[in-house]
Amino acid sequence: MKQNKYDDAAFFAKYEKIPRSVYGLDGAAEWPVFRSLLPDLRGKRALDLGCGYGWHCRYLREQGAVRVVGIDLSEKMLAEARARSADCSIEYRRCPMEDIAFAEGEFDLAISSLALHYIEDFPALCRKVYRSLSPGGSFVFSVEHPMLTALAAQEWHLGPAGERLHWPVDDYQDEGRRHTRWLGEDVLKYHRTIATYINGLIEAGFRISKVIEPSPSAETRAQHPDLKDEHRRPAFLLIANSKPE
Amino acid sequence: MKQNKYDDAAFFAKYEKIPRSVYGLDGAAEWPVFRSLLPDLRGKRALDLGCGYGWHCRYLREQGAVRVVGIDLSEKMLAEARARSADCSIEYRRCPMEDIAFAEGEFDLAISSLALHYIEDFPALCRKVYRSLSPGGSFVFSVEHPMLTALAAQEWHLGPAGERLHWPVDDYQDEGRRHTRWLGEDVLKYHRTIATYINGLIEAGFRISKVIEPSPSAETRAQHPDLKDEHRRPAFLLIANSKPE
Repeated sequence: MKQNKYDDAAFFAKYEKIPRSVYGLDGAAEWPVFRSLLPDLRGKRALDLGCGYGWHCRYLREQGAVRVVGIDLSEKMLAEARARSADCSIEYRRCPMEDIAFAEGEFDLAISSLALHYIEDFPALCRKVYRSLSPGGSFVFSVEHPMLTALAAQEWHLGPAGERLHWPVDDYQDEGRRHTRWLGEDVLKYHRTIATYINGLIEAGFRISKVIEPSPSAETRAQHPDLKDEHRRPAFLLIANSKPE
Repeated sequence: MKQNKYDDAAFFAKYEKIPRSVYGLDGAAEWPVFRSLLPDLRGKRALDLGCGYGWHCRYLREQGAVRVVGIDLSEKMLAEARARSADCSIEYRRCPMEDIAFAEGEFDLAISSLALHYIEDFPALCRKVYRSLSPGGSFVFSVEHPMLTALAAQEWHLGPAGERLHWPVDDYQDEGRRHTRWLGEDVLKYHRTIATYINGLIEAGFRISKVIEPSPSAETRAQHPDLKDEHRRPAFLLIANSKPE
């Protein structure tokens, strides 16, 4: 059984209250950057890996996608997603991301937002996604940055007065399981190097088209005190890829 | 005037004594990985940016390159390079890397070993290198890893007994000058994010073919105590690229 943390009632009760659960895409600081990587969506068939509440699925439809399949392992997530939209062109399917099986070229676009650090074998997933895309198709995703996942603690190194001295990196080359804490609960993530992400994509056949390590502007950081240190180390890694024509 | 640290007599006297100056490619831990990224060299015309003592230029010739141009800003470096080989198919040229000007398609391969973190405008250099390569040509380089250049100190965070607690990262998104110390001297480097390296290449027209963050094996680390912590954070970033046919 793959980790299904989001069907843990205590964890989910906390997850429901974080900004991106309450405000959706507007509550996700990296969303404008993610959106900028998406191709023209009109007429596209799209796949969302780790769709959660379905925010991205609904966005894709609003922008003209003709069919959207959202995959998630959590029944609670999918129940929320279904409750938020009756759009019969969005299909929510309960399945581990690693087990997806689609026809060759069934989609024109695959996306994933902050979910692929939960899977163990990234190169294998790349091969499946590549196969499921039509020639010229796009694969756009975000993950927690490898600088964030290297140490399971995922915390700033603090000084004697609790001030944030710097971000600590260690065990970077030791890829694999990280037993982290999030929202006060145990969450299993998989750490991978940047090289493993990029080479997994290239070896599957993708062409890398852009890499973004987003950082809020100085203005945004001034307005949102909780983001004030977000230029000091990258929190997310976004990669846009294309399947050659 | 571009930084020409290697013509500083005191600095050069120290540089002459480090393992990679004494032992050449065999003294560079990342060399086997760098070499693995090179294409078949037979019949190739090659450019080496920041050629130093000319170790790579001579290797390229040994492997069958028909013409090699080595660029360096330091006359001391080039004097060493010229003294080590009378091969008239290697041309050593004194020039800042940023100022290179070659005919379109003049080379089949461009390489650079641990030199591009000394230049300010990486995307501009990518455009020049791209233009100088023939279709199907390769660009392979190594730089200090952005996790290493983020903080000018470039030192482990130590515990009370001097033990290496972790590698500190800070100011990652603030690209630009870093006044570092190396071999007891001031050395100016330029910090860039991983995204800036990769997007600079893609925007110039290159296809990324492989990214390596090399790490010595557990066996090598056991044999070489000075490498024992090299799996804890990446020290180098190597990127292999091709110019589409």
